Amino acid sequence: MSVGRLMRQEEDQVGLWLIGACGSVGCTVALGLAALRGGIAETTGLVSMLPSFRAGRLVDPSRIVVGGHEIRPEPLPEAVRHFGRAAGLFDEPLIKSCEVELRRSQKNIREGTIYAARRSILEENGAAGIRRERCAAEAVERIRDDVIQFRKRNRLRSAVVVDVSCSEPRRGNHKANADFSALQRELSRRGSQAVLPSSIYALAAIEAGCPFINFTASTGVRLPAIRQRADALGVPYMGSDGKTGETLVKSALAPMFAARNLEVLSWFGENILGNRDGAVLRDSSVRQSKLRSKDKTLKGILGGSPVTHVGIDFVPSLHDWKVAWDFIHFRGFLGTRMSMQFTWQGCDSILAAPLVIDLARFAELEHRLGRAGPMRHLACFFKDPIDVDQYDLPTQWAMLLRHFGPASSLPASPAARTRRKERQR
Amino acid sequence: MSVGRLMRQEEDQVGLWLIGACGSVGCTVALGLAALRGGIAETTGLVSMLPSFRAGRLVDPSRIVVGGHEIRPEPLPEAVRHFGRAAGLFDEPLIKSCEVELRRSQKNIREGTIYAARRSILEENGAAGIRRERCAAEAVERIRDDVIQFRKRNRLRSAVVVDVSCSEPRRGNHKANADFSALQRELSRRGSQAVLPSSIYALAAIEAGCPFINFTASTGVRLPAIRQRADALGVPYMGSDGKTGETLVKSALAPMFAARNLEVLSWFGENILGNRDGAVLRDSSVRQSKLRSKDKTLKGILGGSPVTHVGIDFVPSLHDWKVAWDFIHFRGFLGTRMSMQFTWQGCDSILAAPLVIDLARFAELEHRLGRAGPMRHLACFFKDPIDVDQYDLPTQWAMLLRHFGPASSLPASPAARTRRKERQR
Amino acid sequence: MSVGRLMRQEEDQVGLWLIGACGSVGCTVALGLAALRGGIAETTGLVSMLPSFRAGRLVDPSRIVVGGHEIRPEPLPEAVRHFGRAAGLFDEPLIKSCEVELRRSQKNIREGTIYAARRSILEENGAAGIRRERCAAEAVERIRDDVIQFRKRNRLRSAVVVDVSCSEPRRGNHKANADFSALQRELSRRGSQAVLPSSIYALAAIEAGCPFINFTASTGVRLPAIRQRADALGVPYMGSDGKTGETLVKSALAPMFAARNLEVLSWFGENILGNRDGAVLRDSSVRQSKLRSKDKTLKGILGGSPVTHVGIDFVPSLHDWKVAWDFIHFRGFLGTRMSMQFTWQGCDSILAAPLVIDLARFAELEHRLGRAGPMRHLACFFKDPIDVDQYDLPTQWAMLLRHFGPASSLPASPAARTRRKERQR
Amino acid sequence: MSVGRLMRQEEDQVGLWLIGACGSVGCTVALGLAALRGGIAETTGLVSMLPSFRAGRLVDPSRIVVGGHEIRPEPLPEAVRHFGRAAGLFDEPLIKSCEVELRRSQKNIREGTIYAARRSILEENGAAGIRRERCAAEAVERIRDDVIQFRKRNRLRSAVVVDVSCSEPRRGNHKANADFSALQRELSRRGSQAVLPSSIYALAAIEAGCPFINFTASTGVRLPAIRQRADALGVPYMGSDGKTGETLVKSALAPMFAARNLEVLSWFGENILGNRDGAVLRDSSVRQSKLRSKDKTLKGILGGSPVTHVGIDFVPSLHDWKVAWDFIHFRGFLGTRMSMQFTWQGCDSILAAPLVIDLARFAELEHRLGRAGPMRHLACFFKDPIDVDQYDLPTQWAMLLRHFGPASSLPASPAARTRRKERQR
Repeated sequence: MSVGRLMRQEEDQVGLWLIGACGSVGCTVALGLAALRGGIAETTGLVSMLPSFRAGRLVDPSRIVVGGHEIRPEPLPEAVRHFGRAAGLFDEPLIKSCEVELRRSQKNIREGTIYAARRSILEENGAAGIRRERCAAEAVERIRDDVIQFRKRNRLRSAVVVDVSCSEPRRGNHKANADFSALQRELSRRGSQAVLPSSIYALAAIEAGCPFINFTASTGVRLPAIRQRADALGVPYMGSDGKTGETLVKSALAPMFAARNLEVLSWFGENILGNRDGAVLRDSSVRQSKLRSKDKTLKGILGGSPVTHVGIDFVPSLHDWKVAWDFIHFRGFLGTRMSMQFTWQGCDSILAAPLVIDLARFAELEHRLGRAGPMRHLACFFKDPIDVDQYDLPTQWAMLLRHFGPASSLPASPAARTRRKERQR
Repeated sequence: MSVGRLMRQEEDQVGLWLIGACGSVGCTVALGLAALRGGIAETTGLVSMLPSFRAGRLVDPSRIVVGGHEIRPEPLPEAVRHFGRAAGLFDEPLIKSCEVELRRSQKNIREGTIYAARRSILEENGAAGIRRERCAAEAVERIRDDVIQFRKRNRLRSAVVVDVSCSEPRRGNHKANADFSALQRELSRRGSQAVLPSSIYALAAIEAGCPFINFTASTGVRLPAIRQRADALGVPYMGSDGKTGETLVKSALAPMFAARNLEVLSWFGENILGNRDGAVLRDSSVRQSKLRSKDKTLKGILGGSPVTHVGIDFVPSLHDWKVAWDFIHFRGFLGTRMSMQFTWQGCDSILAAPLVIDLARFAELEHRLGRAGPMRHLACFFKDPIDVDQYDLPTQWAMLLRHFGPASSLPASPAARTRRKERQR
Repeated sequence: MSVGRLMRQEEDQVGLWLIGACGSVGCTVALGLAALRGGIAETTGLVSMLPSFRAGRLVDPSRIVVGGHEIRPEPLPEAVRHFGRAAGLFDEPLIKSCEVELRRSQKNIREGTIYAARRSILEENGAAGIRRERCAAEAVERIRDDVIQFRKRNRLRSAVVVDVSCSEPRRGNHKANADFSALQRELSRRGSQAVLPSSIYALAAIEAGCPFINFTASTGVRLPAIRQRADALGVPYMGSDGKTGETLVKSALAPMFAARNLEVLSWFGENILGNRDGAVLRDSSVRQSKLRSKDKTLKGILGGSPVTHVGIDFVPSLHDWKVAWDFIHFRGFLGTRMSMQFTWQGCDSILAAPLVIDLARFAELEHRLGRAGPMRHLACFFKDPIDVDQYDLPTQWAMLLRHFGPASSLPASPAARTRRKERQR
Repeated sequence: MSVGRLMRQEEDQVGLWLIGACGSVGCTVALGLAALRGGIAETTGLVSMLPSFRAGRLVDPSRIVVGGHEIRPEPLPEAVRHFGRAAGLFDEPLIKSCEVELRRSQKNIREGTIYAARRSILEENGAAGIRRERCAAEAVERIRDDVIQFRKRNRLRSAVVVDVSCSEPRRGNHKANADFSALQRELSRRGSQAVLPSSIYALAAIEAGCPFINFTASTGVRLPAIRQRADALGVPYMGSDGKTGETLVKSALAPMFAARNLEVLSWFGENILGNRDGAVLRDSSVRQSKLRSKDKTLKGILGGSPVTHVGIDFVPSLHDWKVAWDFIHFRGFLGTRMSMQFTWQGCDSILAAPLVIDLARFAELEHRLGRAGPMRHLACFFKDPIDVDQYDLPTQWAMLLRHFGPASSLPASPAARTRRKERQR
């Protein structure tokens, strides 16, 4: 291969910078991309590989280079192995085949910031030894430079930053959050607690000119001041809180009740899980933040006044497996009460990781095409999509399809067609 | 009120002719319409009352007059009471308020035909005493005249015929079914078994110039010869097999798996119910006919080759309540196997009856507007929609909305809006 | 009938005095006894009617006279009708047939005490108008006299007092609770808050010489001082918290895991219900009291350290129907993780009422035989049985059988035999 | 170690001869015993390791030597690896640690007989090349000699034969089955089809003087003629059909309904699984045999006439995991209908294997103590226990405890105690 072609190819690569690179989602993304590159994984679970998006000039997954921030001391390959063993995922041959790639990604991992982080987060992650910056602005600057260096060192065309770290507690709004110059001043103030880490990362990504995706329920990019800055710099962004399991099912099922004019009286949902996210959610302020995001879906789709409940509880033995039970009490013709219930048994990281890759591909394309602001067409990936008040999956799905071409393509059949073809090969 | 105005008003009424008028669905339709007319029932469960269809000039439910064929000896008011008591539905005050109306409907009920009916049907329904016609043509003629008389006697603007009787066994195709003149000759042959009762009713409806709806899994209007005749006479029709419960849920959930590129490995569904339909389904040839119809949905939406199973079993203690359990085994990213299961506990007739009223309203409008042939836009009401190969609910729902105006109206919000308004009143 | 025989018959009657006589359980007990007396109800649900207890000289249900205390203003017959309508229970003919009996019971209902009751209880029950006694001793005296008058007026052989009111919050122990004379002094102190209403009722019952049953999770008879008094007066008692639904299932299922040496890692239970008990349980201090009682079962049976969780949430649309979902995560041979889940959909009062009648019959017999103290053989009726640390149903059941004769009779077959005989008749 | 001591130790070893040694249960037994011997597996799942049986002089699992018959060509270590990979069980380190032991067991595996086997069995197992004996007697003799050789070659004190092969179809009874001498004559007749393979194995085991356990639903030892022979030779035996999953739950839950006098109207059970047993059960005659065995439990416990249904369906993607859904419709006080449902998600072989080891230990002890005939105290291990008509788990469990000492020990606590101690170590 000529040096010229090699360089062009390298320039074709794009970066995926993960906040929380060695967490369970981060591990699965890194391992999954390595496996896809090695041709030993199928594309099942990747929305962006459906035929509807074939013509969309999305970057090939094999051209995505992984890097990120992490506050835990354990390196990526070891984190992958430990997580896999605990959750009963990833057999040894798979990890072995991807080890070289994982070690390469590890070289792109930098120490995250603990500025404004809760003490419990530091303890749980063994991050006590990390140096805390004097002010938030200093943290933003350092994070931004890490991302810029990543892009340069790997000669990447561009990089997308995705926050896959644990959920943060919701916070009362600081007055500086409304305007970027006010925020800038505030962040330079020593010890300021105006923003939480998720917003430090979001701002740093934007300052680095990178699209930013809020995959958690944290505030991140949602502060008006930070959105102003993203608009000023022409950076696209989206969030928040990836729609992977129970909420996904809700957003597919609730429209059915609406379309049949059945009145949902109560929709009671209970989630149990045992991963770090579950452990963090024992903190009731974090749980509130998560639940608010989960609860929007039903209110948004069903309207009226159904009694809704979303519970999350920590059951350590489940590790990364989430079990959700939803009970739906509804009223039909002549006031007759009926019910439906479902149990979802899914693996959180396995469901989240391909969506993170999808979002990186979709965001990179928007950025390449020079578009900025909230990527509303990606609403179907989020529990609480920015600037979108459609929560039902069919409508959100139609928004995504419409963005990529004539509405002729239907939701279901494409998926089927791909799979059929993949099998024939 | 002047005689002129009275007459105009009467001419505004339309008929709903039910095949199986005193079955559980028939009873619920008749009682429900009486309750709506009396202002003592809400419109919950009626799709056609959603705001999206407000501007559609559909006939008001209070203007629908009920009549029908029945082979059971028990009159409608008694059948309603017995059915309600057995299934734990309809409290006494409701039935009492509607009794006058039900007696009026009873006057419009005529003896059904038992030509070509299975012996077991006669025994189960106490229909042994009914006179059997000498040939199918004679039955068609008699049925047709009953419908015409109903229209005349009640001075109805028009009438829609809906088959809500029990499912029939599937049959090998008779060669006469391909062409109407051949069929006509065959039907005049004494003792011919070319068609089953459902097709006798369908043909009779069409000969009477009435739109025909196949709400069961029976053949009915689906014979090419009968469809030819409907086209020739300019009559709209649709079917078959109302999508009321488990299949409805499937058609809402399966697109979710497709849209997330998750591979469904197996979808195992089991239905248990205790009504007459359940009893009839013990006959394996009838069950085959029903299962074929139920199974189309998944194959149609998911493509590929998931292992699907649909079971139906008779559990008498459940009466009209159907309990369905579906277990979905699927594969996500990196080959990880996950599962979901749901249990649906619904009352069959309560779910079916409002859809029958919807279909009557929608079909009457098409007929009034001079349209003929299969009403494809009604696909979302059926498990096995004629001439439509879209089985997913979101697409079918979009088809219905598109038929009634700009696609701007979204599936979920309208339902919510209505209910909100209804409550405010 | 001669006056002599009539009097003897009346003397054969026994009283069932209900604390919370017009609550949902009280209503169902009163209606059920009336229906049994009228011969229009079967004995399904009554443990004490199983053949194992035939020879036990238990009082016939038709000889039980109902009375009780209530703080709500609504009379019993109306309460029965309202409750039945809201919960979808008791058809009109049943209520009509029992109306005379219910009116007769209403004559035996007296105003309950609100001494030491939470304000919220008064508001929810419309009990604002009730006069509050000056000290607890005054309340005890009044309650005691009501019970004695009931026994006299109805010429009852004896009376059993059962607390079927709402659960109370758990309270720190007052030092006077340890010894009866100390308690007696404390109760005479104006405004003393040493005991909650449930213990006032318990003490009053004992002072009246009546067996007392704690069917709720409240403290009631459990104070050492009150138990001392019961022993001194030779009165039998038992409690607490009737085992009607989810906990019953747990106590039947958990021994299976133990007997197969399967290690339960986590047992997550969630209960949703919509009755007054559910509403009261929104108060977190009450919920704690209830949950402690519910959680004892698993810890008691499984030992070790499974992670257990019992949740209770209020879902108004369910009324008296309780839906419980339990997810059991367990480990088998070679460390393999497996799971089981169940959903229980039962009607609380319908399950509780026959047990209340059973307990009255069993307690009356003990009293008649001159036995006092905790009736340990009744452990199978309670979530938290006094002085019994066996929580598994099979062991508790064996204890009940052993009390009534040779252990030869097996748990299952008798029930079957009865039913078979009942059907033959 | 001195030769004398070595020999004594060897004489202390006992054999476990498996019919179907390389099937999924056989693999798990062999691997599990190797792991226990190596100290790398816990005793979870082994009933016989509960403290109640500590004093019972049962042989230590580390002294059990595995051998068996198999008609599949694949050797044991490979079968273990393939099965584990397909079912998602046994990680590589576990298999590696046990490989030497598995190879040693492989030396004890002999070619099974295909005399009287269905053609489909041969095809599915790749057993086409196996020589068929000329008459059943020849097969019995060869099998018997294999077992005797196994005992001799490994210097075993004794050996227990357990049938863990696939279920056979039920067969009309041959007249020779009633009497041993008649059967003996018949078996010597060339081509006789009087008995199926399971009975050939059972008879051979008995002729070799080995206790025989029917772990499948096949006929095996249940022929009167074979039982006569076992009695004559003083050999203990038991069966049939291991109670591992759904039926186990039924036998724990059904007594609860009986003890509460709740009337079970319908109990509908549906099992789906994907292992070879599931594949074999597609043959309706085999399924009948299995279902009859599964259905006995409910009829036996509940009596009366509940409508029961047990379905088994083949869902290949589940491999060795069985998912069972049971819906229980029951009637309580005042005729109120309620319901309960459960879903069991267990791994068949992981549940069965420790029970096979338990049965070997219990049977070896009986044999050593000179007892013969049906081992009724082992009823709790079987769906259809020979000569026992108690199907409820609590009664069966009490039978087992009583066999091993005073009934003082309670079902639950021992298991808990063990685990607590195991953790302390």
